[in-house]
Amino acid sequence: MAERNRQILLKARPKDRPGPEHFELAETPLPEIGKNEVLVRHRFLSLDPYMRGRMDDSASYAAPVPLGGVMEGECVGEVVESRHPGFAPGDWVGGARGWQLYSAAPGHTVQKLPAVEGVPPSAYLGVLGMPGTTAWVGVTEIGQPKPGETFVVAAASGAVGGIAGQIARRMGCRVIGIAGGAEKCRYVTEELGFDACLDHRGDLGRQLDEACPNGIDVYFENVGGAVLQAVFPRMRDFGRIAFCGMVADYNVRPLPPGPSLASVVRKRLRLQGFIVTDHPRAWPSWREHGAAWVRDGSLRWKEDMAEGLENAPAAFTGLLEGKNFGKLVVKL
Amino acid sequence: MAERNRQILLKARPKDRPGPEHFELAETPLPEIGKNEVLVRHRFLSLDPYMRGRMDDSASYAAPVPLGGVMEGECVGEVVESRHPGFAPGDWVGGARGWQLYSAAPGHTVQKLPAVEGVPPSAYLGVLGMPGTTAWVGVTEIGQPKPGETFVVAAASGAVGGIAGQIARRMGCRVIGIAGGAEKCRYVTEELGFDACLDHRGDLGRQLDEACPNGIDVYFENVGGAVLQAVFPRMRDFGRIAFCGMVADYNVRPLPPGPSLASVVRKRLRLQGFIVTDHPRAWPSWREHGAAWVRDGSLRWKEDMAEGLENAPAAFTGLLEGKNFGKLVVKL
Repeated sequence: MAERNRQILLKARPKDRPGPEHFELAETPLPEIGKNEVLVRHRFLSLDPYMRGRMDDSASYAAPVPLGGVMEGECVGEVVESRHPGFAPGDWVGGARGWQLYSAAPGHTVQKLPAVEGVPPSAYLGVLGMPGTTAWVGVTEIGQPKPGETFVVAAASGAVGGIAGQIARRMGCRVIGIAGGAEKCRYVTEELGFDACLDHRGDLGRQLDEACPNGIDVYFENVGGAVLQAVFPRMRDFGRIAFCGMVADYNVRPLPPGPSLASVVRKRLRLQGFIVTDHPRAWPSWREHGAAWVRDGSLRWKEDMAEGLENAPAAFTGLLEGKNFGKLVVKL
Repeated sequence: MAERNRQILLKARPKDRPGPEHFELAETPLPEIGKNEVLVRHRFLSLDPYMRGRMDDSASYAAPVPLGGVMEGECVGEVVESRHPGFAPGDWVGGARGWQLYSAAPGHTVQKLPAVEGVPPSAYLGVLGMPGTTAWVGVTEIGQPKPGETFVVAAASGAVGGIAGQIARRMGCRVIGIAGGAEKCRYVTEELGFDACLDHRGDLGRQLDEACPNGIDVYFENVGGAVLQAVFPRMRDFGRIAFCGMVADYNVRPLPPGPSLASVVRKRLRLQGFIVTDHPRAWPSWREHGAAWVRDGSLRWKEDMAEGLENAPAAFTGLLEGKNFGKLVVKL
C-alpha cells in the first residue's frame, strides 16, 4: 500500500464563523494496526452542525477537538486489514473515525454494517445513522405528539428535520415544515409528504398563523434565532418544544436573547433539550423501524454529496449557512 | 341579620401596575340562598399573584374577571345558614368565593375543613391550600430533585417558595433560597432551615457562584426577570426549571426578552410550566403529608395578615411589589 493517509486538522479556533483558515490538510503515513484493531479505508464522511461546537474550547457536553487534532466525525468505510477476529477485509463498518481517509480502529469502536438490499452504506450516516436516530428520539421521547396534533419542524428539508416530520406524520399528526426557499419547500411537501412547508425567508409569523390557525402542539427545534421567535408565541397550551439544535446561534457571540418565558407558566409549556448519545436504546429501535421503511420506500431522504476530503471544510461552512440540501456527506 | 354584604369589584383593567383606581368597594344586600346552598361568612381571604392575570382580558388559562364583577379569590369562612344537607351553621368551609364578606355557595363549590388541633383555619389558604399544594406539585412532579442535588428557589420567604424549599430539603437536597433583603434572608435560613439564602438586591450572579460552585440542578421559578437571567446560565447538565410564576413580568408590557435558549440543547435542560389546578390528585396527597408536618411543627410557614376587606386592594398591590412577608391573608 503506497497510499498515504490524509487528514483535516483543526488549525485555529474560530471566533464566530469557521473558514478555511481554521482547517489544515495534512498527509501522514498509513497507521499501523495493533492487536484487535482494523485498518479502515473511510469511504464516506458525515458533516453535521454539532461539529461547530467541537471547534470551541468552551464547556460543552463533549470535549473539544484539540488544536492540531483531527476533526471529529462519523464515517463508513471498508476494512482493508484486520487483526480482530470479528472483522475481515471487505467488511463495511461505521464509527466516529474523524475527517481522514484511513484509521486504525480498535474493533469495539466500529460497528459492522449489515448488507441490506436497498440500503446504501452512506445511509448509515444519515437516515439510519445519527441524524435519523436524533429525529426518532426527538419525536418519540421528547416531543411525544398525539394523533391529530399540529407538529412543526424547522430545517424540514435537512437530515434530521425531514425524518422527524415523516415520523410525526406516521404518528397521526398534521405536519408543517419550515425551510429556506421555494425549492426546499417544494421538496418537503412533494417528496417528503408534509402537509405544508413555510419559507422562513417570507413573513413566517403570518404563514404560521395561516398554516396553524389553532396554534402549535409540538415544535421540533433545529434552528433557533428568528424562527424560534416566530414559533414560540404560537405554541398551544401544554405544547412541547424538543430542542435538538440551535444552528442560528452557533456562530453568534454574545448570544442574542430568547423569547420571554412568561407564557411557559400560563400555557404549561415543556421545553426540553436532548442529545441523541444520551439515548443508547433508541439506536437499535430506530435501525429496526427505519430500515424497514427505507427498504419499502415509504421513508424518503436526500443526500447532498460533496467529493473529496479536501473539500470537507468548505462543505461544512456551507452547511452552517444552510447551503446544503439534504444530508451532507463527503465521498472520500 | 341587619348586616349587608361588602364586595371589592374590578372597576377598570390596569395597563401595567394595578392601583386603587382599578378597584371599587360596593355594598349589596346579603345574598339569599337557594336549595343546596349555604350562606358563608368569609373570615379570611387569600391574596395571590395569579390574581393579577385575572384583571387582564387577554387569553389565559382562566377567564378574566368581568368589569364590575367581584374579584376572584379563595376564602375560608363559617357557614351561617344552610339549605344543604351536608353543612350546618358553624361549619368551617373553604372555596373560591371572591373578595367579599358573604356568599351564597352551592354546596359542591366549598369544602368542609377538618378541625385539626394545631392547624388554624387560615392555614387552608396557605401552607395547606393552593400555595402549599403548588409547592408540592412543583417540587415532586415537575422539578423532581434527587438526593444530593442543589435546589434553588426564588421568592424563598413567600408562601410557595418557603414550602417548596422545605419539601426539597426533606428530599435530601442542598437548598438555596433567593429573597429580597436581609430580614427575609435571615428568616429563610434561621426559621425555614434552608442551607443558604441570597439577597437578589446584591450581586446575585456572584452570590450564586459562591453558594452553588457546581451549578444548579433544579430551579423553582416564582419570579422571572433579572433573577431568572442570573440563574439560567448556572444550570447544570440535565437541570430542570419548574416554572410556577413570573411575578416580575406580570406588570411589564411589552414583555422583556428571556435568556438565550442555546444552552437548552447543550445542557439537556427541561423547562416546564405548571398550574396547580391541572393536578387534582396532588391536593389530597399534600393535605395528608403537609398536615402531619404542620401538626408536628416540622414545617414552618408565616402569615402576613392584613385587616379588613377595604384594605385588600392595597395589600394586593403591595404583594406584587414584594412588600409582604409570608403568605398574604386578609382577615375579614
